Amino acid sequence: MTTRVLTGITPSGTPHLGNYVGAIRPAIAASRASDIESFFFLADLHSLIKSQEPERTQRSTLEIAASWLACGLDPDKVWFYRQSDIPETTELMWFLTVVASKGILNRAHAYKAAVDKNREEQLDDDAGVTAGLFMYPVLMAADILIFNANRVPVGRDQIQHIEMARDFAQRFNHVYGKEYFALPEVIIDEQVATLAGLDGRKMSKSYHNTIPLFAPREELKKLVFSIVTDSRAPGEPKDTEGSALFQMYQAFATPEQTAAFAQAFAAGISWGDAKQQLFERIDGELSPLRERYNALMAEPEKIEAILRQRGQQLREQFAIPLLKELRHAVGLRDLSTAGDAPKAAVVAKAALPLFKQYREKDGRFYFKLLDGEGQLLIQSEGFDSPRDAGQLIAVIKQAEQGDALQSELFRLEAEMAPVLDALQALREAAAKD
Amino acid sequence: MTTRVLTGITPSGTPHLGNYVGAIRPAIAASRASDIESFFFLADLHSLIKSQEPERTQRSTLEIAASWLACGLDPDKVWFYRQSDIPETTELMWFLTVVASKGILNRAHAYKAAVDKNREEQLDDDAGVTAGLFMYPVLMAADILIFNANRVPVGRDQIQHIEMARDFAQRFNHVYGKEYFALPEVIIDEQVATLAGLDGRKMSKSYHNTIPLFAPREELKKLVFSIVTDSRAPGEPKDTEGSALFQMYQAFATPEQTAAFAQAFAAGISWGDAKQQLFERIDGELSPLRERYNALMAEPEKIEAILRQRGQQLREQFAIPLLKELRHAVGLRDLSTAGDAPKAAVVAKAALPLFKQYREKDGRFYFKLLDGEGQLLIQSEGFDSPRDAGQLIAVIKQAEQGDALQSELFRLEAEMAPVLDALQALREAAAKD
Repeated sequence: MTTRVLTGITPSGTPHLGNYVGAIRPAIAASRASDIESFFFLADLHSLIKSQEPERTQRSTLEIAASWLACGLDPDKVWFYRQSDIPETTELMWFLTVVASKGILNRAHAYKAAVDKNREEQLDDDAGVTAGLFMYPVLMAADILIFNANRVPVGRDQIQHIEMARDFAQRFNHVYGKEYFALPEVIIDEQVATLAGLDGRKMSKSYHNTIPLFAPREELKKLVFSIVTDSRAPGEPKDTEGSALFQMYQAFATPEQTAAFAQAFAAGISWGDAKQQLFERIDGELSPLRERYNALMAEPEKIEAILRQRGQQLREQFAIPLLKELRHAVGLRDLSTAGDAPKAAVVAKAALPLFKQYREKDGRFYFKLLDGEGQLLIQSEGFDSPRDAGQLIAVIKQAEQGDALQSELFRLEAEMAPVLDALQALREAAAKD
Repeated sequence: MTTRVLTGITPSGTPHLGNYVGAIRPAIAASRASDIESFFFLADLHSLIKSQEPERTQRSTLEIAASWLACGLDPDKVWFYRQSDIPETTELMWFLTVVASKGILNRAHAYKAAVDKNREEQLDDDAGVTAGLFMYPVLMAADILIFNANRVPVGRDQIQHIEMARDFAQRFNHVYGKEYFALPEVIIDEQVATLAGLDGRKMSKSYHNTIPLFAPREELKKLVFSIVTDSRAPGEPKDTEGSALFQMYQAFATPEQTAAFAQAFAAGISWGDAKQQLFERIDGELSPLRERYNALMAEPEKIEAILRQRGQQLREQFAIPLLKELRHAVGLRDLSTAGDAPKAAVVAKAALPLFKQYREKDGRFYFKLLDGEGQLLIQSEGFDSPRDAGQLIAVIKQAEQGDALQSELFRLEAEMAPVLDALQALREAAAKD
């Protein structure tokens, strides 16, 4: 079984080099591993907690989406979508809200920090605190559970949120008597690369020491040349230890290049030459990205189309079927089935045929069709993208016994009759529910 | 403008005579007033806070829906729907959650009662309290605001919830700079009829003194004859004051009949005869309702169909367009419009043509089409139900310039060209968003 890895992206303005080195680049590299299915979402519903400026929210969402795409996120290989395009998330949030204990939410770090601050200022505990800040962990749990993500890579400060998501999932499973949700696991990357900023402190917007990721070449050069160094003259050996300039070079260079740069430091390279080399190295990596970014920003309708299409696919393949199952689980059911034999109906439902989509070690995307007893009816070939697999599933589902289906099944060496029975059972179940 | 009145119905099992006299009958009578548009919803999402037994939730929803229909709620004249069939409600709930202050929710009666109980028992304040109980007022606000209901008739214990809904609506309007929401008003009916139960105390499930509304004739008779009376013998005058039996009779009789019954009390009617008369009176009113109830319960698929159809209509006419507007308001927007002139886009949107639906004093349902300047383009005739009005709107919206549209516009004395322009503008806006 392939592992589902979910990453939330807060749409908060243009990223800087620190974001790129510490978060964007490694996450995109990890998404290319063959044994995982990656979900990257723009957390625009979350962003409303902090930002209530509509134009800024829209603009930030666009810039962040363009940034990740420009940095190489491949929307055909990973699920790249906008949180608000999956409205089932807020429905699921309510189902989790009714099982979540309020006491747990009281202990959430972000909420407690707000309370502590209020106490320091001798205000009411909840002064200026919105219900949004308080309920944030439940929305985050819904983001994770709606796609039954197995692993969620987060910073240390977010571990607690994943634990809460596990707790809510466990409670729901327990209350409604079935393993509706897989329990997500935290992945902590202990070696998160941080980058020093222009002044040597950690690069961060709050220190005003950042280099914007897509700064034009001239601006990038100016900023690199403004990095603070010590006052050693050309010819004097320089320290690599503690040098923001050296550390930044390292983040963009191979080990060999880094070793050569260290030697140049020892040999007394001038700060001007060092900065020129650093600038060339960064610009070498970023200039194709910058070009892609500018092209993407010039055609925002393309980004909109990608996000919309992927969101729609996710809804159809995961969110809508899951919510259908969960509504049934909690008792929001078709009233015409409220007869004398509710148990029988549940059993019949559990024994429906099933399309399963997954990713193999070879990095390709597969699906199979199982009948009610778990018998394999169709085993697909590998596809380059989950979308391709999904399209063939759609063709099969829609086909009655026409030529398209026959030729596909022949190619897949599947038997016609049991497949037709299974498709019929699925259609009947869909019509009934 | 017609007033929108919204009533939430908790799906908690079969109703009793007290529910009928105190809530169902007066609410249905009020829904027949000509100057209001009534919304009745089965609060199944709310019910999940208390009941986590799926079969019971389903069964209760069915029974309560059948009860209201059997008692005369006309689903062609009022909006009768299931809360969970309007998934936009939970999306709206999140938009309200981010503007709602947590401090207000701390002061909600239901939550405070739970905390007080925990303190009495020397438990943690929030022991056993779910986030569902805590967030209940925000969901209720979403129920009200999603249809911009003007008036919400509630019991005294619910006044606070309506005040919270006003508060959240006001905050949202303020934060996003426009009157997106009308502020709902509480209606308190001070003369809510309560009915005495079998033992003379208020009829209530918790006292086990109820008469089920749809008890079969024989059971009804047995229960009526079990009403506690004093021990006065036949021939002795009886007190009407404080007599549960007399009060129950009054609830099912005209003033004249009640006066005659009072005289019979004074003239010393035997308790047996009095109970027989009460039984006949109640059964006279209830037996056609009981018959309808049984017929409805025998065909639950009809109820399901009604609820589903009305839910779908409500989504199309109100919830989906409102959420589209609100998403734009908060900044969840089409990224392709994130250009340099966001202000201009907002103005253009505000100037779109508009279909307005409303109800007149004559009790009939109307619509009109206004252009971007508010000029009247189409004025409809009156319809018997909002559904009929909605259907014609759908026909007009879909028609390009075909015969159907032409003949309708001719009949309505509307001019073709400006209507076509308006429809075109609406279509373009829909395609863009």
